[in-house]
Amino acid sequence: MKILGILGSLRKDSLNRKLLQAAVKLAPEGMSIEIFDRVGEFPIFNDDLVPSPPAIVVEFKQKVRAADAVLFVSPEYNYSIPGGLKNAIDWGSRPNADNCFNGKPAAIIGVAGRLGGTLRMQYHLRQVMVTLNLFPLNKELFVREGASKFDEQGALIDAGTKETLNELLSELQTWTHKLK
Amino acid sequence: MKILGILGSLRKDSLNRKLLQAAVKLAPEGMSIEIFDRVGEFPIFNDDLVPSPPAIVVEFKQKVRAADAVLFVSPEYNYSIPGGLKNAIDWGSRPNADNCFNGKPAAIIGVAGRLGGTLRMQYHLRQVMVTLNLFPLNKELFVREGASKFDEQGALIDAGTKETLNELLSELQTWTHKLK
Amino acid sequence: MKILGILGSLRKDSLNRKLLQAAVKLAPEGMSIEIFDRVGEFPIFNDDLVPSPPAIVVEFKQKVRAADAVLFVSPEYNYSIPGGLKNAIDWGSRPNADNCFNGKPAAIIGVAGRLGGTLRMQYHLRQVMVTLNLFPLNKELFVREGASKFDEQGALIDAGTKETLNELLSELQTWTHKLK
Amino acid sequence: MKILGILGSLRKDSLNRKLLQAAVKLAPEGMSIEIFDRVGEFPIFNDDLVPSPPAIVVEFKQKVRAADAVLFVSPEYNYSIPGGLKNAIDWGSRPNADNCFNGKPAAIIGVAGRLGGTLRMQYHLRQVMVTLNLFPLNKELFVREGASKFDEQGALIDAGTKETLNELLSELQTWTHKLK
Repeated sequence: MKILGILGSLRKDSLNRKLLQAAVKLAPEGMSIEIFDRVGEFPIFNDDLVPSPPAIVVEFKQKVRAADAVLFVSPEYNYSIPGGLKNAIDWGSRPNADNCFNGKPAAIIGVAGRLGGTLRMQYHLRQVMVTLNLFPLNKELFVREGASKFDEQGALIDAGTKETLNELLSELQTWTHKLK
Repeated sequence: MKILGILGSLRKDSLNRKLLQAAVKLAPEGMSIEIFDRVGEFPIFNDDLVPSPPAIVVEFKQKVRAADAVLFVSPEYNYSIPGGLKNAIDWGSRPNADNCFNGKPAAIIGVAGRLGGTLRMQYHLRQVMVTLNLFPLNKELFVREGASKFDEQGALIDAGTKETLNELLSELQTWTHKLK
Repeated sequence: MKILGILGSLRKDSLNRKLLQAAVKLAPEGMSIEIFDRVGEFPIFNDDLVPSPPAIVVEFKQKVRAADAVLFVSPEYNYSIPGGLKNAIDWGSRPNADNCFNGKPAAIIGVAGRLGGTLRMQYHLRQVMVTLNLFPLNKELFVREGASKFDEQGALIDAGTKETLNELLSELQTWTHKLK
Repeated sequence: MKILGILGSLRKDSLNRKLLQAAVKLAPEGMSIEIFDRVGEFPIFNDDLVPSPPAIVVEFKQKVRAADAVLFVSPEYNYSIPGGLKNAIDWGSRPNADNCFNGKPAAIIGVAGRLGGTLRMQYHLRQVMVTLNLFPLNKELFVREGASKFDEQGALIDAGTKETLNELLSELQTWTHKLK
């Protein structure tokens, strides 16, 4: 089972990148997670360009299509989805007849430096998933006070977060089998 | 009173551009609306670049700061805010101590080809406004079946929409005076 | 396959009651829909009463548990879920270990006199479903300008609405089989 | 300046009641907060009863109208507004021409036993406020891990929460003056 892990943050020392790397390591047997960390390479979406999309869009859509499920790993910007992540989603969904997300199982996780734990981002993304025809897990993971949850090498060291992340990935595996 | 009208769509024949142009014409006496239609020129937001932001970001923030109020005019993409518009907002809000939107009055309008009239986009944007410390009008405008509301030259011809848009701009004027 | 159709409106001439009655008639072969129209009989939820719940709550939870899936049929009140429907949901979900909705497939439909078609209610209800552990269809039905869609006997006469409702019920049937 | 503090919880030992009692004590000079804790006495809203509303509805609407601003103090039930609180709001808003909330300043606070701090409830309530024509503060208060923030007599003892609550009430006072 192949999962595409889509990263919503661009910064080098991103906590969400570390969380996604932890997910790669904690994936249950039979699941492999590929990291997609290139939402920064997309131009701003323009309907006029949909007939001849840039190479990064073509590549992104192929990767999503090749995956059995999608894992969004993202910070929350201004109480919602980061513009860059939303922009990649907008590209991936057009034209309507060629929405690369159509019918896939999905999950969302996120880590925040402060208290909300990306909660507001996740509910906006869930609403977006209705029209993308993604099927999200109900299982949630909000990592708060993120700086304290990783060591200096960027490894996830918080036992509770590891356990929840592990459970979530196992549920994603079961869910993906069920929706086949 | 100077209003910055921020356009969320890039396509050439955008219905929302036509709606914003209609707003420019329908602005009540004493109000002028400047169109900002360059969200397509922003790079994808990256926290690491905040200390030395690109020129378009500096210019955008100056324009927002110089305005007495902000008018968002945008389509809805995938049941939420277009990634490109959200990306410009994300740039405008950072660093926290230099959020260009802080304390401004605001309004949202939008037109859609189909039925929703950008409703879902508008509520997500309202949630974003809480942290931007923008103060939106409660007055709303959702233009549905947009193609039928403009003539071939792109002028707004629907009487009901014109009236509501006019009222909304007058309320924005009153609201902006009140919040001074 | 037994579906419980939960009605969110109390008024006698409710458009949503008519829509639910139409669903009963349009249910595909192999599916029967029972109407639950008694949210008006619940007391206001009080945590202190959970250990000895009123009879209507016990009965409601039994009906939900006996159903293979749940169909919410409701108006939108003040841009969200009617208080009465939400109150019944709150009772049904407690105590946590005895949440009657846990794991069920679900769908939402609604009709409004005006334009929104219960759109805002439906997204709030979808967010509620995450914690109820309900699994909603992505298929949606928003019936607008409801008064014109039913005849004097209350029968649904709008061909487009009938077709979409029929498709939605068929998808609910398939979805419920898949999630077994 | 008179504020009506509307309590969303019915249980006797409610943390939100304690939070509202703390607000009463922390109100700045010139502000008095009256507690309204009777949402449990409302029948479930029924449009057919709007022409002859029950006494509790008449009384509630008078209290809201007599107040200069409204303070909602509520738990989060199932990721949204408690049904009972929403039901009282639905009564207060009808008929449309007699919406008791129309034009008032408002604020929302809430305490939760667990981590979210009533965050999801607050954003749903903010969306409801658009149609009620309430004008909420952007200032927010989410009290998490509530059990540890009050002493055995129910007094708020957490210094950070007290400070934020005090600031929020002062901002509500300023905001209410501004909107007069």
